[in-house]
Amino acid sequence: MVPRNNAPEDPVNEIVKTQHATFDEPLKLQSGATLPAPFTMAYETYGTLNAGRSNAILILHALSGDAHVAGRHSAADRKPGWWDDAVGPGRAFDTDKYFLICSNVIGGCQGSTGPSSVNPKTGEPFGLQFPVLTVADMVEAQRLLLDRLGIETLLSVVGGSMGGMQALQWTISHPARVRSAIVLAATAQVSPQSIAFNEVARQAIYADPKWKHGKYTKEEAPKEGLSVARMIGHITYLSDRSMREKFGRRLQERQKLGYDFATEFAVESYLKHQGDHFTQRFDANTFLFITKAIDYFDLAHGRASLADAFQKVTARFLVVSYSSDWLYPPEQSEALVRALLQNGIDVTYVEIHSDYGHDSFLIETDRLAGLSRDFLARVAAVKAP
Amino acid sequence: MVPRNNAPEDPVNEIVKTQHATFDEPLKLQSGATLPAPFTMAYETYGTLNAGRSNAILILHALSGDAHVAGRHSAADRKPGWWDDAVGPGRAFDTDKYFLICSNVIGGCQGSTGPSSVNPKTGEPFGLQFPVLTVADMVEAQRLLLDRLGIETLLSVVGGSMGGMQALQWTISHPARVRSAIVLAATAQVSPQSIAFNEVARQAIYADPKWKHGKYTKEEAPKEGLSVARMIGHITYLSDRSMREKFGRRLQERQKLGYDFATEFAVESYLKHQGDHFTQRFDANTFLFITKAIDYFDLAHGRASLADAFQKVTARFLVVSYSSDWLYPPEQSEALVRALLQNGIDVTYVEIHSDYGHDSFLIETDRLAGLSRDFLARVAAVKAP
Repeated sequence: MVPRNNAPEDPVNEIVKTQHATFDEPLKLQSGATLPAPFTMAYETYGTLNAGRSNAILILHALSGDAHVAGRHSAADRKPGWWDDAVGPGRAFDTDKYFLICSNVIGGCQGSTGPSSVNPKTGEPFGLQFPVLTVADMVEAQRLLLDRLGIETLLSVVGGSMGGMQALQWTISHPARVRSAIVLAATAQVSPQSIAFNEVARQAIYADPKWKHGKYTKEEAPKEGLSVARMIGHITYLSDRSMREKFGRRLQERQKLGYDFATEFAVESYLKHQGDHFTQRFDANTFLFITKAIDYFDLAHGRASLADAFQKVTARFLVVSYSSDWLYPPEQSEALVRALLQNGIDVTYVEIHSDYGHDSFLIETDRLAGLSRDFLARVAAVKAP
Repeated sequence: MVPRNNAPEDPVNEIVKTQHATFDEPLKLQSGATLPAPFTMAYETYGTLNAGRSNAILILHALSGDAHVAGRHSAADRKPGWWDDAVGPGRAFDTDKYFLICSNVIGGCQGSTGPSSVNPKTGEPFGLQFPVLTVADMVEAQRLLLDRLGIETLLSVVGGSMGGMQALQWTISHPARVRSAIVLAATAQVSPQSIAFNEVARQAIYADPKWKHGKYTKEEAPKEGLSVARMIGHITYLSDRSMREKFGRRLQERQKLGYDFATEFAVESYLKHQGDHFTQRFDANTFLFITKAIDYFDLAHGRASLADAFQKVTARFLVVSYSSDWLYPPEQSEALVRALLQNGIDVTYVEIHSDYGHDSFLIETDRLAGLSRDFLARVAAVKAP
């Protein structure tokens, strides 16, 4: 048992262990290509699956997330999982009631097969030989994992940002297996501005000579390019106001302007730190593949309208946007809600007022907790189909 | 005489010539450093200075601008100057009435001395030996140019974006020499979000191995890094809405998704083009120095409040913001207007509703024309001090 953050009196999460499932059939992808077998899914679970197997919730991570949602891998871990504030006893996703599962997305670099994995066909890391994926492909790999775990029906699929896209995709790809979806700070159609930021971030990686068209080694990785890419992304996760409040025009480690090109404003120092830190835990090629999957995410693609995408959907929805999120702004959630309503789908929509920008979904967990508890209780109270 | 754009019936601008003024005294800078002599200012003029020398307007350019505001250098020029829509006979800044001057900022790369110029002390290009400049330093160099031209008082100082910052600085540095200021899409205090974008853009240049700490040659310049830097900037000049309307999720030169990393969305293609094109006309070190000058721009710096900055200012102001400008949003113009009002300064403030984002100041010239004509006529009607 590990104390949670600085509040040891809180109920706490157990020590958790990342598990791995390996699949021996190739995965057919939306592009028509296949991911060769064997491939692996890394995942973690929290809480206990009930006898009726009816309390399982799939948590879906965002761009830089992983399977390690909550708790610690060892008592020595400095930090808990990426959504520890939301997942645990009595929290927004209550491990005393629900069985939670989270897997690293396919294409990732945190245990699931991705471009840094060895291609079984060549014995070399995939690099750019890894097939370009979509959010629907990520969901297919997750479905195989659920089959393996013997879970037919999910009480809910839950995610923020790209996690919200996966949640939406789940309700469409497997309507019979999903009873509800909680979609946070997400969009049903990635905007050209978001594509633009992702493309510029990718260009920063391409421009790093260490990238070598994806054929780098872990020791000689394109860290400079990946760091710039992450810095670009990070600006889009914050809001103008939160940056003013957090940093203002304050200098870092200096009393007055230096008239040079050293990192001097606190906001620069923060971003540089975020960028550099990211390169210690993330793979540049995975960044390329995952941002590309995000760019491709458009539920209206190949359909007459966005509403058409939800024609066969039966899940109930809780859609949450955040007022200062300018990456996937509230109006994009509203477009999603309208598409759901046009199909007569049961949807609760809340715009949470928050200054934290896109990152709000990771920060405003207290305000999410009441909503998600009541929503999940209501979904659980309805007899499963 | 050259036909203007595609409207040959319009009154037209003459063929113009860039002129150069060289100064033999070092320029003392805000940092305490000096720019060694001799240094050069490139400038252009339009219209005719009247006998009373009372109709001169100084136009101040933004980050990537130059002295070539309007007209063509030769009849063969494919495009006119950067603000040709606003400057000419009968336009917002009427060359039949006013004598217009625009110079390339010091630190620039379009004729004025900048980091790519030869350092007279070493015989080598300055590179990072060029002193870090501020907007106030740009203004001091412009003042020397006006002295050389024999112009004591300006009817107006006019600029958008960084040009607006220079206009503001002029009213503060030389209150007796400026009768009015037209400040478009600008801010009195650059926000941490803007600093963040500038810093990430600079990081993209630093990360290019051809940059070599600024010691590159023109033939082996850090074009990849500069292109990424420009792409980052360019996103901030547009609005989410204008991108949706201009590009949407449309593909460029493809009928369907390619499932590869080629540039495929129209928005990507546009930005890449903008980035690459920029490297043909702009110097990477100048980009570093000018963005740093922007980051340093904070008229409240070293003062108790922003209002204090305008205590000695006597100019009349026309302040214009654009509704969809999220780089220097309307609320920043409003903060400026409040600071002016607190000093009892005569200010007209207009927020123009436009979807073109920060770039609106270059595009919405028709809507500016009426405002600027009436404002300038009113200023001109008041007897000069």
